[in-house]
Amino acid sequence: MSIVLSRDSQVRVMENTVTNAEKYFGQFCSLLAAYTRKTARLRDKADQLVRQLTDFANTEHPEMRATMRNFAEDLAKVQDYRQAEVERLETKVVCPLKLYGTHIKQTRAEIKKFKQVQKNEMKQLEKLEKLRQKSPSDRQTISQAETGVQRASVDASRITHQLEEVIDTFQKQKLKDLQKIFSDFVTIEMVFHTKAVEVYSSAFQILDSYDLERDLEDFRTKIHGVYGHYDARPFKDTTPSPAVPWALTGQSTQTTIRSQRRDEEEEESTEHSAEEDPVEDLRG
Amino acid sequence: MSIVLSRDSQVRVMENTVTNAEKYFGQFCSLLAAYTRKTARLRDKADQLVRQLTDFANTEHPEMRATMRNFAEDLAKVQDYRQAEVERLETKVVCPLKLYGTHIKQTRAEIKKFKQVQKNEMKQLEKLEKLRQKSPSDRQTISQAETGVQRASVDASRITHQLEEVIDTFQKQKLKDLQKIFSDFVTIEMVFHTKAVEVYSSAFQILDSYDLERDLEDFRTKIHGVYGHYDARPFKDTTPSPAVPWALTGQSTQTTIRSQRRDEEEEESTEHSAEEDPVEDLRG
Repeated sequence: MSIVLSRDSQVRVMENTVTNAEKYFGQFCSLLAAYTRKTARLRDKADQLVRQLTDFANTEHPEMRATMRNFAEDLAKVQDYRQAEVERLETKVVCPLKLYGTHIKQTRAEIKKFKQVQKNEMKQLEKLEKLRQKSPSDRQTISQAETGVQRASVDASRITHQLEEVIDTFQKQKLKDLQKIFSDFVTIEMVFHTKAVEVYSSAFQILDSYDLERDLEDFRTKIHGVYGHYDARPFKDTTPSPAVPWALTGQSTQTTIRSQRRDEEEEESTEHSAEEDPVEDLRG
Repeated sequence: MSIVLSRDSQVRVMENTVTNAEKYFGQFCSLLAAYTRKTARLRDKADQLVRQLTDFANTEHPEMRATMRNFAEDLAKVQDYRQAEVERLETKVVCPLKLYGTHIKQTRAEIKKFKQVQKNEMKQLEKLEKLRQKSPSDRQTISQAETGVQRASVDASRITHQLEEVIDTFQKQKLKDLQKIFSDFVTIEMVFHTKAVEVYSSAFQILDSYDLERDLEDFRTKIHGVYGHYDARPFKDTTPSPAVPWALTGQSTQTTIRSQRRDEEEEESTEHSAEEDPVEDLRG
């Protein structure tokens, strides 16, 4: 009897080992999958920021334009590393944890097989007990039942040793996998953070070496370019003359359009080094 | 006339400068706020993982328990640094960008004031033009209107210079703020990534020094503790005897309960160094 109970305890320990692994590996899997997804979303937001920084750079004067473009490039580089982080987490952390489910199912099947053999041993014992109570004098049938019990015990004993090995292997693999998966997690994170430090150091230099005064000079030149009209034309021109119809006539509108075009041409000439006219950009 | 047009161009440049700043600073603000929120969510997921790792550690043998606890502590440390990152991003990046809205509104108000003065100049010019067409001989009224135009022109000229200063200050502040905000962003990120590298290096050591064999020995001792019943009791005990009622009687149930209790006591003795019995944990 006590060997049957001891086997029962053993099955309980084994089942708990597997159930525990199933529970925690399942949680690790879903949490690390969520962690990976959140990382991907962080990358998406930073990618959007990169695009906005690039768009913004195109509306700025050369100095700020170069600074923002280079900064955006560095920020994009960090996102490339983050993308690599996401892919590696998927491959080396989330996938192995997912596959663990299959491994656990196999071990569960082994335990189930053992339980059936154990159940058979119990059945044989019960059968023998009943016989002994109902027909204590039927020596032959009792003897057959005793043989049945012994055979079932041998089966149970054999499969117990098999299961012991299965669980030993399971536990060893579980501990190895835990060490491997979390070491991989740490390595992936470490690589990403190291690269991020590198790239951000360069980004800091870019922002630090930005020449504000040069940019302001460009801006002032542009503003003064507009004032240029003022300096180029004598005050008398602005004194209304009957020869120039100022009111809302067709001719006046045409003059306005021409003058505006010229303004734009002059703006462009002061913005010679710029690839795109920031003001033009915003007009559209 | 052309000075009026040149002022119009200037206002356009200024309005575009402010509109552009409003557009991009607004986008930077909402993207960086989203980036900060996503970072906070990543921290939340990692915090959940820390809790699960700690729970799991408590169900494991001493060696894995210590490893998982120390690893979870390091992972929690990274989240503390991430929390600091989130708070700093809020204070030094998102808030200044939000406050920029007020700054832009003030500048818009200055431009509006200028436009009103400019509009008045136009009105005076139109009035003069109409007078010249309707009553070209009314020298006195025309002279009054000319004075009105000149007064309005002086006002417009004065406020133009004021606005030039306002826009110069605005642009200077904008460029300075951009440099400052993104430098702060980079610094905050750099500090976080540097700290993460540090902590993960320690976490890697923890996982690397995990002694699998020692843990397996503990596990085997536990499994053999269960087998201990088998070794301690001779085979004859398991041979059913009429003196021991095996079937579903009250006495048999009591024996089963007692035997199970003893099993548990023996399990506990083999798990002496453990603070909590992993199997007991899972039974609840």
